Amino acid sequence: MATKHILVVPGDGIGQEVTAVGKKVLEKIAAKFGHTFTYDEALIGHVAIEATGNPLPDETLEKMRQSDAVLFGAVGHPKYDNDPTAKVRPEQGLLKMRKELGLYANLRPIKLFDELLGASSIKPEILKGADILFFRELTGDIYFGEKGRKNDGDTAYDIAEYSRYEVERIARKAFEAARTRRKKLCSVDKANVIETSRLWREVIQKIAPEYPDVEVEHQFVDATAMLLIKDPRRFDVVVTANLFGDILTDEASQIAGSMGMLASASVGDGTGVYEPIHGSAHDITGKGVANPLASILSAALLLDISFGLKAEAEAVINAVDQVLKAGFRTRDIADAQTPAEKVLGTEAIGAEVLKFL
Amino acid sequence: MATKHILVVPGDGIGQEVTAVGKKVLEKIAAKFGHTFTYDEALIGHVAIEATGNPLPDETLEKMRQSDAVLFGAVGHPKYDNDPTAKVRPEQGLLKMRKELGLYANLRPIKLFDELLGASSIKPEILKGADILFFRELTGDIYFGEKGRKNDGDTAYDIAEYSRYEVERIARKAFEAARTRRKKLCSVDKANVIETSRLWREVIQKIAPEYPDVEVEHQFVDATAMLLIKDPRRFDVVVTANLFGDILTDEASQIAGSMGMLASASVGDGTGVYEPIHGSAHDITGKGVANPLASILSAALLLDISFGLKAEAEAVINAVDQVLKAGFRTRDIADAQTPAEKVLGTEAIGAEVLKFL
Ligand SMILES: CC(C)[C@H](C(=O)O)[C@@H](O)C(=O)O
Ligand SMILES: CC(C)[C@H](C(=O)O)[C@@H](O)C(=O)O
Repeated sequence: MATKHILVVPGDGIGQEVTAVGKKVLEKIAAKFGHTFTYDEALIGHVAIEATGNPLPDETLEKMRQSDAVLFGAVGHPKYDNDPTAKVRPEQGLLKMRKELGLYANLRPIKLFDELLGASSIKPEILKGADILFFRELTGDIYFGEKGRKNDGDTAYDIAEYSRYEVERIARKAFEAARTRRKKLCSVDKANVIETSRLWREVIQKIAPEYPDVEVEHQFVDATAMLLIKDPRRFDVVVTANLFGDILTDEASQIAGSMGMLASASVGDGTGVYEPIHGSAHDITGKGVANPLASILSAALLLDISFGLKAEAEAVINAVDQVLKAGFRTRDIADAQTPAEKVLGTEAIGAEVLKFL
Repeated sequence: MATKHILVVPGDGIGQEVTAVGKKVLEKIAAKFGHTFTYDEALIGHVAIEATGNPLPDETLEKMRQSDAVLFGAVGHPKYDNDPTAKVRPEQGLLKMRKELGLYANLRPIKLFDELLGASSIKPEILKGADILFFRELTGDIYFGEKGRKNDGDTAYDIAEYSRYEVERIARKAFEAARTRRKKLCSVDKANVIETSRLWREVIQKIAPEYPDVEVEHQFVDATAMLLIKDPRRFDVVVTANLFGDILTDEASQIAGSMGMLASASVGDGTGVYEPIHGSAHDITGKGVANPLASILSAALLLDISFGLKAEAEAVINAVDQVLKAGFRTRDIADAQTPAEKVLGTEAIGAEVLKFL
């Protein structure tokens, strides 16, 4: 019987719609397994800017710190994307949250539900059995270095930075995860050009002997972007820097059929944050068609990683599997074979998941 | 009747094997069309370090400047990749060449030969008709900014930098190319996080009105990495920064079936350089199995772009097409259906291309 406090932070766009469903799944799990979960809500991103002028209000940060886990939606708004000169932006809230909570490790498991083998652009025979766990560093790199303008605004710069310590702590998490899996670790960098990547490779090489049971390879980021599509099964655990991780995990979403299926866990020094890897998707916001399965699977990661509730997490994953086996799909994962009546909206597919719980 | 001087710079690994074949194709074209092409050779990369201690000897640079075009192979060696502390590296030769020759625009056409539809990991129905032209900026970004160590070597940094001028000149090349194609331009950045990307987006937005016939969209690099696989046909011309271009074009090679098929042209202020996008591939070096078609197609780009010899370029592309239609393959583009006797080595498939010229 666990008693836990969960902060729901829907953020922008479809973040609202999908976290509502993720929360229902947590409620159902608590009822079924006899846990007491309490909830609160807070603002971040564009909605926070609109309400307070600040993309991460202090109140939100404080509530995050006081919670046992955060169920997160998405941030972003086309308004800022189209205005490169905007000084206040939704993403600043997200980045500040990551930094303030010390969320240096972003886990992105890429696993294809067998029922979705046909939904991907990649051939089923290439995909079948692919199972990758990404560790993306989340509080360093070009995301957090000094940036600005020079020469009257005519030159822009961004500084990428990594310390040995930052590389080592994420690398150790990845090595340890590899030990519990197929014992392969691929470290991705651009050490043939970039100094931060050379430090990255040095650190991996230095600590590798402490994990003699893990087979380590180093790949350049360009080659990895190619190999992920050519032969996704060759990867087990992948560890990489913030920017490369951002790009490669979005790409790898195609291995799982759709971004709408991918959950992530951001963990580190304090409260863990669980969120879909998809963004705010304003093009489909408010239409009730967003795929909530990534938020539901994020709830499963939350139960597993922050609360240590393995059976509960498995019950959630299993329910998603059952819903897919029953032939239900959201639009993004439907294909030519899906009968129209099996293509459900956000709430309806959420209700099906609840039924299987 | 053109008289031209071509410098062949094979570089490292399979660079030697594939440029030898590319050169033969140029010789055959000259004979057939009555041109006079003269040739010289020069060192770069690991082989140049071994011979002179310098990855780009002055003599090589001088010969490049004196030539009408450069047929380039590849640079790189595992020795340096495994030693992140090495001070002299093959890639420095490549980067210095790009900078010294002012090769700011790297064109990477991604086009699938119909015969290779089956060779890709991506489903044929997703690929059919895909035709993308990448413009990768090649002399700026994190590749050329200051880099180094601080705190007794415990912190590494790299500075990414772009000026308006640098963005504008590559953007104009991309807009102009879009005009001659399907009139769509996708500019790729990470403007929600990175300042150089915000400048990038500003410049694109500013000059777009001068090309009212071109439809412009802006995509984030992470979304693009996903969309390239999900729906490659949505792209026509793509323009992006050096690092993003490096990653996305390697990824996009999977649209063309294999990296072994992809040619590139680096152009700018002076002599143009033509090279496969694949690297030195030391794992297959010396085995005679490397696919020379990318080098042959690079020769076609050289004829077209640097010499303005369109019919000659088309003759080369057509010969490659005929060889594929005749069922010949190198190992990397063979599939389960390819009979063993049709799988040829580097020289043998080159000889087939010559026959069709
Ligand atoms: C919204 C954006 C700043 C963010 C990132 O780049 O980290 C997103 O793409 C992600 O992957 O969480
Ligand atoms: C070898 C390496 C430095 C180079 C690059 O990153 O530019 C290569 O990957 C390329 O794409 O030409």
